[in-house]
Amino acid sequence: MRNVQVAGVGMTRFEKSSRTLKELVAEAVTQALGDASATAAEVQAAYVGNAVAGLVTGQEMIRGQVLLRPVGIEAIPIFNVENACASAATAFHLGWQAVAYGAQDVVLCVGAEKLTHEDKSVGLAAIGTAVDVEARAAAAEADEPGAGAATRSFFMDVYAEMTKEYMSRSGATTEQFAKVSVKNQHNGALNPRAQYGGEVSVDDVLGSREIVWPLTLLMCSPVSDGAAAVVLSSRELDARRGPRVRASVVVSGNRHDSGDPAAGSAGRAAALAYEASGLGPDDLDCVELHDATAPAELIAYEQLGLAPPGQGPELIESGETALDGRLPVNTSGGLLAKGHPIGATGIAQVCEATWQLRGEAGPRQVDGARVALMQNGGGWLQGDSAAMSVHILSRD
Amino acid sequence: MRNVQVAGVGMTRFEKSSRTLKELVAEAVTQALGDASATAAEVQAAYVGNAVAGLVTGQEMIRGQVLLRPVGIEAIPIFNVENACASAATAFHLGWQAVAYGAQDVVLCVGAEKLTHEDKSVGLAAIGTAVDVEARAAAAEADEPGAGAATRSFFMDVYAEMTKEYMSRSGATTEQFAKVSVKNQHNGALNPRAQYGGEVSVDDVLGSREIVWPLTLLMCSPVSDGAAAVVLSSRELDARRGPRVRASVVVSGNRHDSGDPAAGSAGRAAALAYEASGLGPDDLDCVELHDATAPAELIAYEQLGLAPPGQGPELIESGETALDGRLPVNTSGGLLAKGHPIGATGIAQVCEATWQLRGEAGPRQVDGARVALMQNGGGWLQGDSAAMSVHILSRD
Repeated sequence: MRNVQVAGVGMTRFEKSSRTLKELVAEAVTQALGDASATAAEVQAAYVGNAVAGLVTGQEMIRGQVLLRPVGIEAIPIFNVENACASAATAFHLGWQAVAYGAQDVVLCVGAEKLTHEDKSVGLAAIGTAVDVEARAAAAEADEPGAGAATRSFFMDVYAEMTKEYMSRSGATTEQFAKVSVKNQHNGALNPRAQYGGEVSVDDVLGSREIVWPLTLLMCSPVSDGAAAVVLSSRELDARRGPRVRASVVVSGNRHDSGDPAAGSAGRAAALAYEASGLGPDDLDCVELHDATAPAELIAYEQLGLAPPGQGPELIESGETALDGRLPVNTSGGLLAKGHPIGATGIAQVCEATWQLRGEAGPRQVDGARVALMQNGGGWLQGDSAAMSVHILSRD
Repeated sequence: MRNVQVAGVGMTRFEKSSRTLKELVAEAVTQALGDASATAAEVQAAYVGNAVAGLVTGQEMIRGQVLLRPVGIEAIPIFNVENACASAATAFHLGWQAVAYGAQDVVLCVGAEKLTHEDKSVGLAAIGTAVDVEARAAAAEADEPGAGAATRSFFMDVYAEMTKEYMSRSGATTEQFAKVSVKNQHNGALNPRAQYGGEVSVDDVLGSREIVWPLTLLMCSPVSDGAAAVVLSSRELDARRGPRVRASVVVSGNRHDSGDPAAGSAGRAAALAYEASGLGPDDLDCVELHDATAPAELIAYEQLGLAPPGQGPELIESGETALDGRLPVNTSGGLLAKGHPIGATGIAQVCEATWQLRGEAGPRQVDGARVALMQNGGGWLQGDSAAMSVHILSRD
């Protein structure tokens, strides 16, 4: 297998945007190509992640071709990839696989999403398709709980159930969840590409509008638009060596006992990534993980082996995952503060990791960061994420 | 690069079906695994093509995970791939790429589509998203021709324009187009998995309802449901050696002079496939090509190098592409008679080629077939298909 480097990265600010998907993608791709000192003509294939354009903008089927033509990318193979909120991580993985195994030398991976719509329910309904919609319709017909509500993302019901189960298993409190939001909003304020960010208190988080108990507004990732792009290369495209991809793993969910953090998709993906890279949790200098809600960050601490089973709450309490802690998590602000344009998130995580490993993260720089892990999950199927990815990058 | 073999194939009958996508996929996958003497547990990754489930059934984002869980495929990487009517060919290509370059040893590639809906306009509208929908909306607002009609697939307008241009360039007549339909309906009658098929005359074709001039109903592929699956392997899974993938190419469209059949995506894809395989048009024993309309078959003759530029009409007149001719084309009945569940078509072509190369095509068997070519296109963007694939299989 060949070494694959992140030759260049680019991303828009995440926000509720009046710009079209084409405009967002053009900005991210132009930035990534410039960062890699590469031209559009050097790109041999493009892997494009998007989750819901078909449902929100009506652009189904050939999204990548439509989005990349304006920046002069045509004729080459363009692969449209979908894996719900892990669509971009999946596009990254397929691009990495192609370069690592020698099918292509230089590829472009893109994640892009436009979730805002003049009718807010359109975006929320679209997010709700990342489940077995047939099973969900049957549950709704039977008036079972968790069939969703029109005023919030269906996923917040899923996350609320997961959170209650986690609370009873670990003893986690809503105050501890709020501390995740406080940390990530703090980090987001230091990231010019973040949608939100600022100094909020535990009381602010707990006192914000209830979405579905125990989740409050400030514990939930927002509705966002944005795009992120990365150029992967088997060689150096310019004098500056980008970080190296040490592991890239995508798995699907499986039926398992949710009480064992290693048994589900995130635990399996992390184990495969640690094995492939020869690295472990102790080697990590920073982490971007899938905090679609604040409690999800604590659950992920355990799934990724950053904390022993049941000790996610202790890790946030310790302050070790704060920006000035031993292992800063979600330095970008995470999904909670940076925003979560679902099909873009996985590659936005790669952008943040790359900037950290290059020492270019400005006021949120982790001193001497050499190894970064990214975790990005998507969809929900019978008690597990439908798709899950873990990547590990290192500076050398 | 490693040799990749088609270890097993399976497909449902194509038809307007009352069965769900899950049921269709279960049948095709079970058949393909059985044909390969493989178990679900041996599959290391799945590449799943679908074009419009998000718009027709509401199942977006994690289609493959939802469709494969009922047949016991979970936990492994599942990649949801979309490239309009070339979605299945693209899924096949990515699976081939993974095995050929050593990322996986055994993969499952699936194409599936359910286009029928109680409201017929839903399926037709969904097909119409395989273009730049922003540009199309602008054209509709300006009341330009070709913005589509609610009573037919938008693509029939695209094909009608393409056909008129081809007629003026080659002198092709509507009678010659009708001969394609006569041939493919004849072949379809010999294929138990074909939606239609039967003995029709040139007059029947010309006298059928006009869709948009010069296309009549019998010159257009129908609305279909169905699924097709293939197991690709780097080694023999059982004693019987499946055909070998000699070339698998996917490209995107490009702006070009449409008068030169070699300049567009189909011509480029064919040239790359011939180069990769070391084979040429004279080596082919049978061909499955993208006859979404009857005239498209004549145009493809030229793009694939089966006829010299401008001589597609002569080739159908010669009878050489009939089942008993020198180079039978669309022995399965093609899209016209077998049906065209858009995200399934590319892999259904691989099924037919595999049966032909194994000598298992029954009454439509091409004697001694050793080399087969498949061509599958998808979407439309500024005068060319958005995505295009050409695969070549050989018996040894």
